[in-house]
Amino acid sequence: MKTLVVHAHPEPQSFNSAMAARLVDAFKARGDEVATSDLYQMGFNPVASAADFTERGNPEYLNYALEQRHGVKTETIAPDIRAELDKLLWCDTLVLNFPIFWFSTPAILKGWIDRVFVSGAVYGGRAFYDKGRLRGRRAMVSVSLGGRTNMFGPGAVHGPLEDMLRPLLRGTLYYAGFDVVTPFVAHHVPYIDDAARAALLEELDAHVARFDSLETLSFPSLDDFDDQMNPIAAGQGAST
Amino acid sequence: MKTLVVHAHPEPQSFNSAMAARLVDAFKARGDEVATSDLYQMGFNPVASAADFTERGNPEYLNYALEQRHGVKTETIAPDIRAELDKLLWCDTLVLNFPIFWFSTPAILKGWIDRVFVSGAVYGGRAFYDKGRLRGRRAMVSVSLGGRTNMFGPGAVHGPLEDMLRPLLRGTLYYAGFDVVTPFVAHHVPYIDDAARAALLEELDAHVARFDSLETLSFPSLDDFDDQMNPIAAGQGAST
Repeated sequence: MKTLVVHAHPEPQSFNSAMAARLVDAFKARGDEVATSDLYQMGFNPVASAADFTERGNPEYLNYALEQRHGVKTETIAPDIRAELDKLLWCDTLVLNFPIFWFSTPAILKGWIDRVFVSGAVYGGRAFYDKGRLRGRRAMVSVSLGGRTNMFGPGAVHGPLEDMLRPLLRGTLYYAGFDVVTPFVAHHVPYIDDAARAALLEELDAHVARFDSLETLSFPSLDDFDDQMNPIAAGQGAST
Repeated sequence: MKTLVVHAHPEPQSFNSAMAARLVDAFKARGDEVATSDLYQMGFNPVASAADFTERGNPEYLNYALEQRHGVKTETIAPDIRAELDKLLWCDTLVLNFPIFWFSTPAILKGWIDRVFVSGAVYGGRAFYDKGRLRGRRAMVSVSLGGRTNMFGPGAVHGPLEDMLRPLLRGTLYYAGFDVVTPFVAHHVPYIDDAARAALLEELDAHVARFDSLETLSFPSLDDFDDQMNPIAAGQGAST
């Protein structure tokens, strides 16, 4: 199996960067071939813009998604995007490892998604969710954050972390077709000691060791919606 | 009243950019003083990094939030952040206008949040949600997207748009203390004709005209949690 680990932390000595290194080792220990994209180290440009296309379908007016489709078809998409898209299409497993910034990805990783999850290659038209172009692959999110465990979950001050991460887990990874496994979450990281951090890295090893049997998050199937994306009434599904 | 409109679209001729211009006019029509941050036009750098501080509290190890606090205290935060932070602290009303990219903000706007919502100035410690430093101010999100109205809401294929926008509405704006009003949403934009677009801009005018009476989204109050952020059992609230 082929695994791509995308990592986004500005401090190479951080615990989150140690998590990224540990993920690489743990997936290799399963026998996977592992590629990495360390976005800060690469100086990855996260800003989607007209400069992302060496040739334009419409040079007068930028419709980003249409130009993505044109760029993929004519092989005129910017080389830094093409290189990352090739890694994305190559992998069976995508791992996103990052510190939670404002309950979501750091901008450098958001921009990797904006630019690399290319329309026409990753999704398009009705090809999303369980019809997304990357279906059959698995994705995992691995995060560190400052909050304590009691701050997340039903009734907790921030509610379930999965609800905060919905645009990423459902709106991005599942949108593209990935089966999204239970995230790995390292809580309270700035405030814990080395022993607690070492224990978290061992939990991360164990999470990856049971990767194939990790539960996947449950999201709607397009089979339950018609061509206009209206819900199909119960009992009018596949049999009608 | 003072209003800051932050706008993030790569195409100045886009409908979303027309929305931004209309927002400025509509808030001025209410008598507001209006400032703008057109992030693409400014070439705003969205990547949080060590370069954001001209002096470091800890030059050996980057803890971004700690350096933000140090930078605010010692007035050594990067000038581009300081300028935006001054606008943020100046405004009574913050408006974020952007096209939905992957059910959230374009990276350039996510990075404006990562860098400008500075720890120690906007939030800190237990100063978040209704205790956030920006409490007493109002925020509004104004978005355009490709999906049709029937794709959002309870039971719809993507569920309620507010749920997808939770990390922004609750996890960012409310976190900093803003009262967050009902978002303005322009659906199906790439596929509609000029008349439908003109009608949407008139709806936007009307939305701003009734801005003071717009409903605010309902989120938890820290009064319902103790100092450890555990929920206070019903009946054990303010009276205990």
